[in-house]
Amino acid sequence: MKAVKARCTCGPRQPFISTLIPRRAPGPSDVVIAIAFAGICHSDVEHAHSLRGSTRYPLVPGHEMAGKVIEIGSHVTRFRVGDRAGVGNMVDSCGGCANCLAGLEQYCSGHRTLTYNSLDRHGEPTHGGYSEQIVVDERFVVRVPDTIPLENAAPLLCAGITMYSPLRHWKAGPGSRVAVIGLGGLGHVGIQMARAMGAEVTVLELDDTKRDDALRLGASEFVVTTSAEALAPLANRLDLIISTVPATLDMDRYLGLLARDGVFVQLAAASQPLAVPSVSLLTNRRSIAGTRSGGLAETQEMLDFCAEHGIRAEIELIAADRIDEAYERLLAGDVRYRFVIDNSTL
Amino acid sequence: MKAVKARCTCGPRQPFISTLIPRRAPGPSDVVIAIAFAGICHSDVEHAHSLRGSTRYPLVPGHEMAGKVIEIGSHVTRFRVGDRAGVGNMVDSCGGCANCLAGLEQYCSGHRTLTYNSLDRHGEPTHGGYSEQIVVDERFVVRVPDTIPLENAAPLLCAGITMYSPLRHWKAGPGSRVAVIGLGGLGHVGIQMARAMGAEVTVLELDDTKRDDALRLGASEFVVTTSAEALAPLANRLDLIISTVPATLDMDRYLGLLARDGVFVQLAAASQPLAVPSVSLLTNRRSIAGTRSGGLAETQEMLDFCAEHGIRAEIELIAADRIDEAYERLLAGDVRYRFVIDNSTL
Repeated sequence: MKAVKARCTCGPRQPFISTLIPRRAPGPSDVVIAIAFAGICHSDVEHAHSLRGSTRYPLVPGHEMAGKVIEIGSHVTRFRVGDRAGVGNMVDSCGGCANCLAGLEQYCSGHRTLTYNSLDRHGEPTHGGYSEQIVVDERFVVRVPDTIPLENAAPLLCAGITMYSPLRHWKAGPGSRVAVIGLGGLGHVGIQMARAMGAEVTVLELDDTKRDDALRLGASEFVVTTSAEALAPLANRLDLIISTVPATLDMDRYLGLLARDGVFVQLAAASQPLAVPSVSLLTNRRSIAGTRSGGLAETQEMLDFCAEHGIRAEIELIAADRIDEAYERLLAGDVRYRFVIDNSTL
Repeated sequence: MKAVKARCTCGPRQPFISTLIPRRAPGPSDVVIAIAFAGICHSDVEHAHSLRGSTRYPLVPGHEMAGKVIEIGSHVTRFRVGDRAGVGNMVDSCGGCANCLAGLEQYCSGHRTLTYNSLDRHGEPTHGGYSEQIVVDERFVVRVPDTIPLENAAPLLCAGITMYSPLRHWKAGPGSRVAVIGLGGLGHVGIQMARAMGAEVTVLELDDTKRDDALRLGASEFVVTTSAEALAPLANRLDLIISTVPATLDMDRYLGLLARDGVFVQLAAASQPLAVPSVSLLTNRRSIAGTRSGGLAETQEMLDFCAEHGIRAEIELIAADRIDEAYERLLAGDVRYRFVIDNSTL
């Protein structure tokens, strides 16, 4: 066990402060990573403010981290000291259920350990990426390709895989029409990915301010959703709509855009139930689905895909003492497109 | 043009009366069918009472009919006089849209003509199966296999295909676990079909009165859904839930039963939007979908499948002057499992 520097918050709306947290001595299958950069995910803010009501304090958030391996356990086979490595939103799962065996650890039906605000298999609280180092079983560590700068890779570990997995699962590709609701941390990598897969991409946003960015990132169309008239030309045309926003949307309006067998995918847990008119589903055999990030194999595939296609997260790098300010700006939608903490400033 | 006997209602909660309705002289591709039997579908009642607010009176309902071909147009190739024939809930579609070309006329994006309470391509109102004869383009007529009595075949034309299509689309088969919510006109054929496809079938009902029937029809399990405790053993176990009830269910309760990639299919248009907690969707990558009956090719496939597996609708045959009573009993859930009108009593 050793103590490493970290930033924590001690209660809802409490400022982040410097602290020391314990990290276990590496076991035989563990990898020790010196975290170079940690992305700030919207869910970090929700947990910090206990908006889901289940936060244990002190809280060290962060589940988008990239860095270098500095030590390995005796049985580790996939990593060596010096390797570029990343960790996402899980650090353990039961390993034995049907979903784990299928490489879909994100749906583990046993005990899944989240990267922070969770309890590991020994009952110890987990701490996230706003820290100097992390110790993780090599099964939950992925390799960051050399061509992606670590700071641009970090947000791919959650935002990236959360977009990539549904795009693959619902077969975005040549001939398919994909819409992304919300051009933010998730949306801006999702657009690049869907485009690289060969799909035609539409961005649906609340106002016009991000139009140029959307087109630059690969969208062929940008539609402001505040008027039903603007959406009318899209009726019955889309194969896949991915909503990156935690808001409770007017589902009738969006479902009407789906072609036959089209799917609306909800990525974020909205605070209120979605109100789904069944006639909108019966028409065109439409579906609404949810997904939760991705498994480890798919996360590696996603990073390799991003390397191959030159996809990266666009970030604003901040020092650790600006986390509170970054949270405020994130809640105000004022970031293009992901805050990333420079962990050398912890 | 000729006049044929029919039963119509002239307004919400008005009794059915005898009438004469016009049927067109058969065109080159038309088939004239002497209707022997017509099923009473729940949607007949909704239309008769204008519960959807769009009923044109006088209304001749009926979109589950079986009978014999008595005349054919000069270009008809698939039917001969004397053939056993059935008509379901559509009698025309545009024929040229992507969905029609894919044999999915039920999702026609052009003009789809419903069997009754609709306008045909000449602007004439359509009248349904509570009548002596119907004249239909042969594209919308299916062949009833010899081994299925016509009275047991009639309900398959709507109830049957409405269950068969989602079972096939979502791949019910060996190793899959299917639940049917509601043991009624749709459910009782759906159980038989899912079982014949090789799936394990669970019936979910509000009380215990139909347990024996469910097991006799092929279910391996019958669960009364009024208590959360009774449902607990099913958590995360089902691959496909088909809800045959137009009620707005507690979606959280039912979604929790779905395994990874499980799908909840809504067949009926519920009066209120479904309230869908997004967390229930994110867990296990679950979906909610809707479907609408089936295309003509699949309807024929369904009838042939029923013939092969000895599946038929269980019916209560009634004379035409008992339609009003049958509607009352249907609304009270008092039928096992489909009222069928003996059209010789019109």
